[in-house]
Amino acid sequence: MTLISLQRALAQFAVEREWEQFHTPKNLVMALAGESGELVEIFQWLTPEESAHVMQDDERAVQVREELADVLAYLLRLADVLNIDLEHALAEKIEKNRHKYPVHLARGKADKYTQLGG
Amino acid sequence: MTLISLQRALAQFAVEREWEQFHTPKNLVMALAGESGELVEIFQWLTPEESAHVMQDDERAVQVREELADVLAYLLRLADVLNIDLEHALAEKIEKNRHKYPVHLARGKADKYTQLGG
Amino acid sequence: MTLISLQRALAQFAVEREWEQFHTPKNLVMALAGESGELVEIFQWLTPEESAHVMQDDERAVQVREELADVLAYLLRLADVLNIDLEHALAEKIEKNRHKYPVHLARGKADKYTQLGG
Amino acid sequence: MTLISLQRALAQFAVEREWEQFHTPKNLVMALAGESGELVEIFQWLTPEESAHVMQDDERAVQVREELADVLAYLLRLADVLNIDLEHALAEKIEKNRHKYPVHLARGKADKYTQLGG
Repeated sequence: MTLISLQRALAQFAVEREWEQFHTPKNLVMALAGESGELVEIFQWLTPEESAHVMQDDERAVQVREELADVLAYLLRLADVLNIDLEHALAEKIEKNRHKYPVHLARGKADKYTQLGG
Repeated sequence: MTLISLQRALAQFAVEREWEQFHTPKNLVMALAGESGELVEIFQWLTPEESAHVMQDDERAVQVREELADVLAYLLRLADVLNIDLEHALAEKIEKNRHKYPVHLARGKADKYTQLGG
Repeated sequence: MTLISLQRALAQFAVEREWEQFHTPKNLVMALAGESGELVEIFQWLTPEESAHVMQDDERAVQVREELADVLAYLLRLADVLNIDLEHALAEKIEKNRHKYPVHLARGKADKYTQLGG
Repeated sequence: MTLISLQRALAQFAVEREWEQFHTPKNLVMALAGESGELVEIFQWLTPEESAHVMQDDERAVQVREELADVLAYLLRLADVLNIDLEHALAEKIEKNRHKYPVHLARGKADKYTQLGG
């Protein structure tokens, strides 16, 4: 399914259950943060190395996959009620970041663009 | 751009800057949580009604759009390094939720499925 | 119990279980974010008015109380391993905020100090 | 300053600025999550080892200290408006966790209590 069709399926899911009343931007932002918190909990005690192999544990792999789906679900609902074209927004952000993080300054550094000098 | 092409652009962006070393699943989960925290900060003092009109304020509209793009960016990177098909994962999750939240029990209620009775 | 004695109890709890290896600042920050995410999930679908009466529901009251305790627990552990005096840090921050948010400019406004003018 | 006197100072700070209208539990929970997100952002690209030395960088040390103070501030405001005794709540939670995480089962393991067997 494409992003748009998933977004429509989620909207219909909400309409059928009369959940639109709960889906204010404020509430959806909280739901997104809640799901990202659940994702954090899965990874909090893992070393970076363990985290790189998390999908080799079948039980955890299912959890991680479902949490990513949940984050995407609320992100799509949020974009829908705010009337934001997510893919377009990200394409523009990537262009913007090309200028904020020029290769010759940002290479191998995790610094924020405000600290890159130049 | 499609989700896949955005994912590729983000991967290339990271490779060009030698950022793959930072993009462990653990770190990307933190980055996702950090961006969702920034989104929360935009909405924290708004009433639900104000949140519904947030895009009418030009300055805030730009912020909200960029934060959603940032969340999507890290979500796509995370799915990429974990080798998860996000759209497929969400399609499956929606199916699963149809059973967890049957219309006749969930209608008009924000309860978790464990509290829906049946 | 005072904050210091709680902090000592938590440190001892970790030592007894050989959990110090997991309690790096990075991991504890994640645990704190995870717990604050659980708190968000309790409140995400409530209206502001419902949230003001959340303690009248016995089951939810217990949950909220435990989540606040969990957040405090990880905050204390974090301050401990980073050797930060939390109460002192907060006293200083309040002083700083007195200057960032002067009463005559901040009255009745939820704006960030950078937007207060003056 | 003690926790109670800090809590009173924060309440007075809010009253002086007529901010009580913004301090619903729902909004304060979001503010807490926002601050914990800022803390996450400081640590997201650090290795666990680097995170253990974060206070040796003067600039970062100031940031970390202020973010911990901010988290504590909102946690205290939240406990205040919900009428929860934080220290008491944590003392009880520690007792509860003694039973959920018995030393002989939990030693050296980061598992959740539901996975400890016994």
